[in-house]
Amino acid sequence: MLPSLRWEEPPEGPVVVLLDQTRLPVEEVELVCTDVPALVRAIQTLAVRGAPLLGIAGAYGVALAAVRGYDVDEAAELLAGARPTAVNLAYGVRRAAGAYRVALEKGAGREGAARAALAEARDLHREDAEASALMAGHGLALLDELLPGGGHRILTHCNTGALVSGGEGTAFAVALEAHRAGRLRRLWVDETRPLLQGARLTAYEAARSGMAYTLLTDNAAGSLFAAGEVDAVLIGADRIAADGSVANKVGSYPLAVLARYHHVPFVVVAPITTIDLRTPDGASIEVEQRAGQEVTELTAPPQVAAGGVGPGAGGGLPVAPLGTQAYNPAFDITPPELVTAIVTEQGAVSPVTGAGIAELCARSRQVTIS
Amino acid sequence: MLPSLRWEEPPEGPVVVLLDQTRLPVEEVELVCTDVPALVRAIQTLAVRGAPLLGIAGAYGVALAAVRGYDVDEAAELLAGARPTAVNLAYGVRRAAGAYRVALEKGAGREGAARAALAEARDLHREDAEASALMAGHGLALLDELLPGGGHRILTHCNTGALVSGGEGTAFAVALEAHRAGRLRRLWVDETRPLLQGARLTAYEAARSGMAYTLLTDNAAGSLFAAGEVDAVLIGADRIAADGSVANKVGSYPLAVLARYHHVPFVVVAPITTIDLRTPDGASIEVEQRAGQEVTELTAPPQVAAGGVGPGAGGGLPVAPLGTQAYNPAFDITPPELVTAIVTEQGAVSPVTGAGIAELCARSRQVTIS
Repeated sequence: MLPSLRWEEPPEGPVVVLLDQTRLPVEEVELVCTDVPALVRAIQTLAVRGAPLLGIAGAYGVALAAVRGYDVDEAAELLAGARPTAVNLAYGVRRAAGAYRVALEKGAGREGAARAALAEARDLHREDAEASALMAGHGLALLDELLPGGGHRILTHCNTGALVSGGEGTAFAVALEAHRAGRLRRLWVDETRPLLQGARLTAYEAARSGMAYTLLTDNAAGSLFAAGEVDAVLIGADRIAADGSVANKVGSYPLAVLARYHHVPFVVVAPITTIDLRTPDGASIEVEQRAGQEVTELTAPPQVAAGGVGPGAGGGLPVAPLGTQAYNPAFDITPPELVTAIVTEQGAVSPVTGAGIAELCARSRQVTIS
Repeated sequence: MLPSLRWEEPPEGPVVVLLDQTRLPVEEVELVCTDVPALVRAIQTLAVRGAPLLGIAGAYGVALAAVRGYDVDEAAELLAGARPTAVNLAYGVRRAAGAYRVALEKGAGREGAARAALAEARDLHREDAEASALMAGHGLALLDELLPGGGHRILTHCNTGALVSGGEGTAFAVALEAHRAGRLRRLWVDETRPLLQGARLTAYEAARSGMAYTLLTDNAAGSLFAAGEVDAVLIGADRIAADGSVANKVGSYPLAVLARYHHVPFVVVAPITTIDLRTPDGASIEVEQRAGQEVTELTAPPQVAAGGVGPGAGGGLPVAPLGTQAYNPAFDITPPELVTAIVTEQGAVSPVTGAGIAELCARSRQVTIS
């Protein structure tokens, strides 16, 4: 298992140890965070990233403050504010801080409350790992059903593996499960411009696990489809609306259109917490526009970690004329009619309809309550 | 007009002056070639590039050797071999060398033959500029017909302007014509991975001509289509088969699929010499696979000119794990059924069929003969 984040208790006191993702794939460097400000810096510099993993980092951060005897409320506020739009980060912080408060109220004392916060962080970590394993199983079963005969050639986009998860991730975990079962013929890895998470992180995870993988520019996927070299597309999701519309890393929607045109299954793998029933449809999802410098300048690791390489305003090497405007949406929206299935830890929805999504969520709540 | 290449005759003797494209868009540096070896170096380092422009460079190169009194056969051989797969380069060399030889045979003497070679290079240059102007006119007329009401928002891929042409280019020339007519609302510029010709060169040409333009990663085009922000796609072509299949820079085919899915016209603009009737269909076009390092490493101008920036084997900054294989086709093939029209200097073919292509070529030959 890739050690993207772990809790350790050396004699000098507890620490959160992170794999510094800004240095991947060039160097494997671990960051040892002995206090909350160090962890906040790691979150802000993207040394640790990815929705579920940020939640786990936030929870362990609260536990770290509690066990080391710092002010827990202040730590929680610092952590939750480190990346304000990261919903999972705030969720993880809330869970650990809530457990701490409840334990205090029950008279556990500061030490007992700290233990409760740590137990909650560990629970969150374990739950995420379990959800990964369940998604991997459901996902592979679906692939085997859609593509009898095995030997899957899977195309994926962005990074959805152990680097973003307490377990083995979402879409990547399915590919890994297929690999372990001897049924992955090839993982096609989109480089995923502009930040190259595919080249930097997914290729790293694929190499580390011994998969047969090949990197490609995002725009070369069309040629692969045309050549009949893609059996299925597997991607993650940042948010899924009540109607089954999927917001994910920009570049997902063109893959969905290509997959439809070539009659190839397009499968979304995401934990059930990704489904947001308060968002009725794709049009209601606000898409973050990111800085144009991500497109007009190039940066590469480990220079990313060093805070830039070039003379560009964004710290990178300029590749477009000065003053060039860029259209740089973080996500795109794939409508439900282009999604073959959504796979969660509670099972798959296929075809993807509002009713199917609602039923899955109702079932999930029953499981949670029971 | 962008001075990508010109012939000059200062007192010290004739020279070929080139805009060094490896330094764009960061610096506008001209290379003054006083002899053929200097011009060959410029061709090999991609200081001058683009099919029609290479042909013109080759023809002027022969003229340069002839006027300066060097061995013309040797110069022709050096030039034609500078980039063996560039068909236009060999064509331009052949035309100027042929004119030189014919003049010699007619008893013009070495000086007269040199003048004939130079006249042939100038003819080729002028013909290419005229073809650009004709394509621009035909292309804009077609756009106005397809999209009544003007205010065109055009998406383009790769670089097809004055930097690759003796005139104003192909697809870009149409956008420029629309801009001058006050009917271009926006040019959407695909960055065009892996070599970023869109970001580096098309954005440069668009900025220089005062167009409203916006750069985007190739994978963000899907979001633009979905938002109804693209009225037409205009691209060039590297080769067109007899059935109307179009080989062009990788990433063209996915745009064609997106355009079809969103009912947006997909228009190819190319000189009639791009049509190769000996290639029956798309499947017969061999697609060059380029070095994986173009994908696994990043390079940016002007470091491109300096021969590299980083420790990678390709001279770039590594962005993928060592040993990563990349799928890096130079081109992709768009089948005729996805092409709304092919615009040439002899007019447009629409719908795109083998019969239509054959008729256009027959008409063109009549014009040439008459």
